[in-house]
Amino acid sequence: MIIIGEKINGTIPSVGKAIAARDEEFIRNLAVREAEGGANYIDVCASTAPEIELETLKWLMDIVQDAVETPLSIDSPNVKTILEALPYAKKPGMINSVSEEAGKADLLFPEIAGTEWRVVALTCDNNGLPNDPNIKFDIGKTLIEKAKKFGIALDRLFIDPLVTTIGTNSQSLLSFSQAAREIKAAYPEVHIVSGLSNISFGMPLRKYINQAFLVLAMGAGMDAAIIDPTSVDMRTSIYCSELLLGLDRNAKNYLKANRKGIIGPPKTDAPKA
Amino acid sequence: MIIIGEKINGTIPSVGKAIAARDEEFIRNLAVREAEGGANYIDVCASTAPEIELETLKWLMDIVQDAVETPLSIDSPNVKTILEALPYAKKPGMINSVSEEAGKADLLFPEIAGTEWRVVALTCDNNGLPNDPNIKFDIGKTLIEKAKKFGIALDRLFIDPLVTTIGTNSQSLLSFSQAAREIKAAYPEVHIVSGLSNISFGMPLRKYINQAFLVLAMGAGMDAAIIDPTSVDMRTSIYCSELLLGLDRNAKNYLKANRKGIIGPPKTDAPKA
Repeated sequence: MIIIGEKINGTIPSVGKAIAARDEEFIRNLAVREAEGGANYIDVCASTAPEIELETLKWLMDIVQDAVETPLSIDSPNVKTILEALPYAKKPGMINSVSEEAGKADLLFPEIAGTEWRVVALTCDNNGLPNDPNIKFDIGKTLIEKAKKFGIALDRLFIDPLVTTIGTNSQSLLSFSQAAREIKAAYPEVHIVSGLSNISFGMPLRKYINQAFLVLAMGAGMDAAIIDPTSVDMRTSIYCSELLLGLDRNAKNYLKANRKGIIGPPKTDAPKA
Repeated sequence: MIIIGEKINGTIPSVGKAIAARDEEFIRNLAVREAEGGANYIDVCASTAPEIELETLKWLMDIVQDAVETPLSIDSPNVKTILEALPYAKKPGMINSVSEEAGKADLLFPEIAGTEWRVVALTCDNNGLPNDPNIKFDIGKTLIEKAKKFGIALDRLFIDPLVTTIGTNSQSLLSFSQAAREIKAAYPEVHIVSGLSNISFGMPLRKYINQAFLVLAMGAGMDAAIIDPTSVDMRTSIYCSELLLGLDRNAKNYLKANRKGIIGPPKTDAPKA
């Protein structure tokens, strides 16, 4: 499972405040905790006014790169900002994200063709966010074929079949899973990723829905997720699911995680930021 | 989800002791807690020497039927004992279990043909417990076709594709899921059930593996389980999975369970027996 740590995001009120106040210590602390929690990438999303977004991203990137070795995930709705931020990364990481909306993929793919950057590609286009799993698959296929055309190796591509909230669409997980299964069947090298917390928007006891979603989505082939890597509950679900899905030979990872005390009862949970 | 309460089982040391001491109060208390926990059936398994099994079963049945309205699940490895116990049930419930081993299904099916008894049928035969999902499917199909021949409505049949322990067979869940999916596709009215705790035998932190198994198996079509109905964790996983799998229209059950406080953080857990 490839984990993209979601905590350094300006849309989270406490983080937005820390960004506005340029509180380096706060950001550094998040980065260290995400790295210690097992993040493979640390997402940085400024979520500021466009005119200060690049400068803010650069500030975040510098702090994270100073604090930990974990590669970055550069997160912006604006592909031009992402492209301007890339040179400030010490090593290739993840780009979050492109899609078939507003020519984003066409703008980004040629620029990263010869690099090692990986990229999250959302299955939406100018018609918005589809509920139909066939449309999700079709947009995914368009993105994958486009990446191939630019010589981007398919294991650098992380397709996100965009989950909608279960409160308004009871077929949300089923549609996500069908699209994920079909994409994996057609393109086994491509990764499937989700920023899964949308699923439970507006519902009580969100974390339990998110956990069950994670397990069911892993059952459908999801092998990456944008989550809070410091959550012991999520980590436990991941280790158990990998074990059950035959992805953990001789239960080696599960047993090691148990010995290290990093999965299991919530008492071992790290303090919340 | 159809829940068969597993707690009144003589193989559990505390229950075995209570049975040996004929401790009515202990058994009654378990029955009440299972019923309050939402059990649709309350399993009774004597697990004594064969010569006192029927008498012990009858003793257990009387206590449970005195204490609660929930129908029984009559549990014995011996089909003849089950048949002898049936007349002591006040109303039809579940039979746990038959299989293709030692002619069990052939013995039981004609006897319950004209009744409303439901039955758990295990996908094993005289060759033992198969790992191969195709053999699980084939045995399941044999059992289903046999039930049809005796005029048993298919929604009375609960096929258990027998999960083996993940510690010795990394394909255990995958094999179970494939068999479950294929049986459901071929016979949509048939239920899929599991006594799932075998999956985690010998592993640490068993309940987390069991919970992830439950979610993944529900994703593969499992709609019944032999579990501890008093476990808030299991109940929470069930409500979340039904919500995500499109089985809970307008999240009505989930929201009601949240209002009643019967799902969510472990603090609401009932005291353990």
